Amino acid sequence: MKIIIVGLGLIGGSIAKALKQNTSHQVLGMDTNQDALLDACSCGAIDGKADTADLRTADMVYLCVYPEAALAFAQEHGPVLKEGCLLTDTCGVKEELCAGMAELTGGNYIFVAGHPMAGKERSGFGASDPSIFVGASYILVDTGAPAWAVEQVEGLAGAMGFGRIVRTTPARHDQMIAFTSQLPHALACAYVASPRCEEHQGFSAGSYRDVSRVAAINEVLWSRLFLDNRRALVEELDELNRNLKRIRDAVSQGEEEQLRELLRKAADTKRRVG
Amino acid sequence: MKIIIVGLGLIGGSIAKALKQNTSHQVLGMDTNQDALLDACSCGAIDGKADTADLRTADMVYLCVYPEAALAFAQEHGPVLKEGCLLTDTCGVKEELCAGMAELTGGNYIFVAGHPMAGKERSGFGASDPSIFVGASYILVDTGAPAWAVEQVEGLAGAMGFGRIVRTTPARHDQMIAFTSQLPHALACAYVASPRCEEHQGFSAGSYRDVSRVAAINEVLWSRLFLDNRRALVEELDELNRNLKRIRDAVSQGEEEQLRELLRKAADTKRRVG
Repeated sequence: MKIIIVGLGLIGGSIAKALKQNTSHQVLGMDTNQDALLDACSCGAIDGKADTADLRTADMVYLCVYPEAALAFAQEHGPVLKEGCLLTDTCGVKEELCAGMAELTGGNYIFVAGHPMAGKERSGFGASDPSIFVGASYILVDTGAPAWAVEQVEGLAGAMGFGRIVRTTPARHDQMIAFTSQLPHALACAYVASPRCEEHQGFSAGSYRDVSRVAAINEVLWSRLFLDNRRALVEELDELNRNLKRIRDAVSQGEEEQLRELLRKAADTKRRVG
Repeated sequence: MKIIIVGLGLIGGSIAKALKQNTSHQVLGMDTNQDALLDACSCGAIDGKADTADLRTADMVYLCVYPEAALAFAQEHGPVLKEGCLLTDTCGVKEELCAGMAELTGGNYIFVAGHPMAGKERSGFGASDPSIFVGASYILVDTGAPAWAVEQVEGLAGAMGFGRIVRTTPARHDQMIAFTSQLPHALACAYVASPRCEEHQGFSAGSYRDVSRVAAINEVLWSRLFLDNRRALVEELDELNRNLKRIRDAVSQGEEEQLRELLRKAADTKRRVG
């Protein structure tokens, strides 16, 4: 197959490398950043730069860009993709994107929405690394695509090293991601805003390191993701606020029994669900 | 030296193992749990069980028990310790403990307050492991002890593999620990209380794993630590609540510029202070 990766950042770069390492498909790249293209070529992450002719003959296109750019790409280039070309994305929020994709006309491609659940607290092609995928989940979001198309994305995810495929709806994806991914990022950013953070060194250990890790955030990407998933994220922030307040009040009022019960429940949950 | 470890849990067990591995001192143990004593003897973490005669001749005693038990031990056994015996603790909260220790009379021992900044989300002798100390901080809290005594605790911390010694006051220790350690534990417990946590599998990755890790908490120990540091912890919880609300309001009102600025500041802080 001829596969084009649009956007050679952390995720696109890692997908390119994983495909080159684990399959014999031709892998081409597109990026507005010429340095990323050059770096990807010179290290063998891609076989070359894709041009308009390549778009016409591609079997598959991965959109590894921000949600609005994914939609804009499909609108602009969708009509030139060949019939049955498989277009898939890696965006972190799905309801708006899937609704936008469904409204587009004028293309004979098939859209499958995907979300590789992997990342790290650095961005750009220089940070890309296919080992972040090993054992991770790849979420496939229902867009009404035919089974063979979904299975093709699934098969490539397996080849890239993903350990688990999860199928879900756009709404459920966004609700779960608000909790599992967006909330920890919001939390980390609020946590490091304490004046004590400036002086943590020498007083901190594993729990500081873990809760603050993702505060080294790409603020442009994550602001967009937060706003694209506003309703679900605000709901999770409010839920967290209520649960923090229960602990705060038990501590403040010296209610040891109540505090133990809150912590005991948390320990039970964590040990049970991992 | 004859060193007695009182309390062979995660920390006491790890200290016993680290001292046996890295020094030639005689290491004896005391614990109300006979199984922990047996396990520690049979794996060579201690040379044997300490009896009352050993207390009279010990050169150094590590109190690796809850704060109130540390105080009770000093009150009960302090008078039999020999003159100049070095009594030190590993408790996670210091103001109350140091004030309590200062009030005790009837002993000729010297008290040095210490806090090894290491741990993990399991407890008991079975979880003890001296490698958790490697490169970690050992906080020494000023109790007016003579320099040679503080240097002795410091020297042993170095031998155990600690990478950094920090000296501070009880009040500053408790304020910093509220932020670096207690707040992440409270946060993790509040986080996993969301109904979405039950269904996280397949939707979660590194950020979920890191923020929830310490929710597998020892609720009896941590309830006590939270309450012993009530004022400082409530202050940090309120600070976090204000910072979370800023993010929540920016998301809820669709204020992208403001949201970016909050996240950008967080990223700056994290990249700057680590």
